[in-house]
Amino acid sequence: MITTGFPTDGPTLAQVGERAVIAAIRAAAPSALNGDDAAVLTPSVPNSRVVAGTDMLVEGHHFTRATTTPYLLGRKATVQNFADIEAMGARPIAALMGVSVSRDAPAAWVEEIARGIGDMAGEYGCELVGGDLTDGQELVVSVTAIGSLGGNRPPLTLDAARPGQRVVAHGNIGYSAAGFALLQAGIDVPEELEVLVKAHQAPVLTPGRGVVARAAGATAMTDNSDGLIRDVTTLAKASSVGIELSKVALRPDATLQAAGVLLGVDPWEWVLTGGEDHTLIGTIDGSAPVGFRSIGAVTRKPGVRIDGEAPELTAGWESF
Amino acid sequence: MITTGFPTDGPTLAQVGERAVIAAIRAAAPSALNGDDAAVLTPSVPNSRVVAGTDMLVEGHHFTRATTTPYLLGRKATVQNFADIEAMGARPIAALMGVSVSRDAPAAWVEEIARGIGDMAGEYGCELVGGDLTDGQELVVSVTAIGSLGGNRPPLTLDAARPGQRVVAHGNIGYSAAGFALLQAGIDVPEELEVLVKAHQAPVLTPGRGVVARAAGATAMTDNSDGLIRDVTTLAKASSVGIELSKVALRPDATLQAAGVLLGVDPWEWVLTGGEDHTLIGTIDGSAPVGFRSIGAVTRKPGVRIDGEAPELTAGWESF
Repeated sequence: MITTGFPTDGPTLAQVGERAVIAAIRAAAPSALNGDDAAVLTPSVPNSRVVAGTDMLVEGHHFTRATTTPYLLGRKATVQNFADIEAMGARPIAALMGVSVSRDAPAAWVEEIARGIGDMAGEYGCELVGGDLTDGQELVVSVTAIGSLGGNRPPLTLDAARPGQRVVAHGNIGYSAAGFALLQAGIDVPEELEVLVKAHQAPVLTPGRGVVARAAGATAMTDNSDGLIRDVTTLAKASSVGIELSKVALRPDATLQAAGVLLGVDPWEWVLTGGEDHTLIGTIDGSAPVGFRSIGAVTRKPGVRIDGEAPELTAGWESF
Repeated sequence: MITTGFPTDGPTLAQVGERAVIAAIRAAAPSALNGDDAAVLTPSVPNSRVVAGTDMLVEGHHFTRATTTPYLLGRKATVQNFADIEAMGARPIAALMGVSVSRDAPAAWVEEIARGIGDMAGEYGCELVGGDLTDGQELVVSVTAIGSLGGNRPPLTLDAARPGQRVVAHGNIGYSAAGFALLQAGIDVPEELEVLVKAHQAPVLTPGRGVVARAAGATAMTDNSDGLIRDVTTLAKASSVGIELSKVALRPDATLQAAGVLLGVDPWEWVLTGGEDHTLIGTIDGSAPVGFRSIGAVTRKPGVRIDGEAPELTAGWESF
């Protein structure tokens, strides 16, 4: 079942008051590390390095109240931040939440966003450890992810792809864009396509794949956030290499094809330009790590190609 | 000299485009750690713990374009986050920046905010290592601070004040509120009172005081963000103790008194309820650490008192 919509009733933040809202947040996403000026995290691995990133979701730009729920919004904000940590080959160890929201909004919004963040963090074995809550006109959810990078191997950087390596991916590519298209179409989504809508509302990734890839010898990695061709191009440019993608490996699966038929859209568009899947895409010598599949190869010749040809679809997300 | 105002001309973010804006941010706040999916930080102290906190500043709620500049806003957002790290007894090691801003705003806003964050981080010996930039109606600046807590002593938590301890403070108390009052009055601020306005636009704290206090044996600490009485009450309640403040130690200095006379305001209001100074306030057995002064004592009897009496002014910042 697909769930959408923000509650419109119930006591507002102003009615509940800051202290009670914060208590509700801490009940929705409990953590013994939360509640002081800042959270203190103890890395599980001695001498590990710290990895940190942050992403904002703004109403009307990254989401609408009609197409998601506060809970799913919290999950999405968390997984997209954790994907950035995983894309360094690191393990998420904590999430921080900043929410700017109108004082006239139902307090349940904030509580549910926190529950979503806490639940997703829990799936990665960590917690929502702190944050900030403030009054604003526009709903903005800002999540910061903190990760831990153990061992002496380098992190998985954008500039470390080498010619001759395999390009590997973990997770579905194109699902989020297809799900968004289904939601926008305003149709009754067939049950077998609900997986696409859910992937848009909050992508599902298996925690720990970035760590697995690094341990297996991957050198470069990113996540599919702005669109596959765009993200792969960023990686190729940063590494001064080219990337040859395999059409067979990327071919839209039966679910994407069914959605394409339903909406009259070429599903390759979702695969190549969609983004927001937060799929991990990396490069490695030898075979694909557990949970990854091969989608192409790193070449000496610059540029990104699909079966030897320049991709026809290269658009992607731009903030401005 | 006081500087205020946001530039209103120059190319907009939409005109400059996301890539060029990000390049300008990285030029304004250079860091070799920036530019990948997430930033990798190497703690300078082996086996140190990670400390993290985040704060948002929203236009019209925490600042106005008329009373600050984008550069000072960046500095303020950073110092208030770093104060939370210091209040744990830790050392800031990195800042992350999230900015939500209209695509029609001058690109210089974002560049200057980043320069402010980078410069303030530089004063703490660290850098702006990453972030997120997005289109939104309302200007929101979200800074996340990452810190490092070395050694085996516990962090300086809110719940660790003990009866018999001294209450100590680093930094001016009431300056930020007085400066805000001067800006709001719309008067020509006399040169000798500019220090108050500057403290409001971006508080000045000596980096490293939290680490010094922890090394000297402080047990509890917070920063004066919501108002002195309110913050001290939070600390006292969390520790199940009382706090007796000294009227002589808190007495408004000549600068605050002069501002009070000019505006016809009792400067005690600024001292007791102002907040936003981000002054460090801690508790310690024995004498005040270097850079701190004694402002009171921890008592077994609950509640916060000034020279034995309940404070008349207890208001403070509330988000809702």
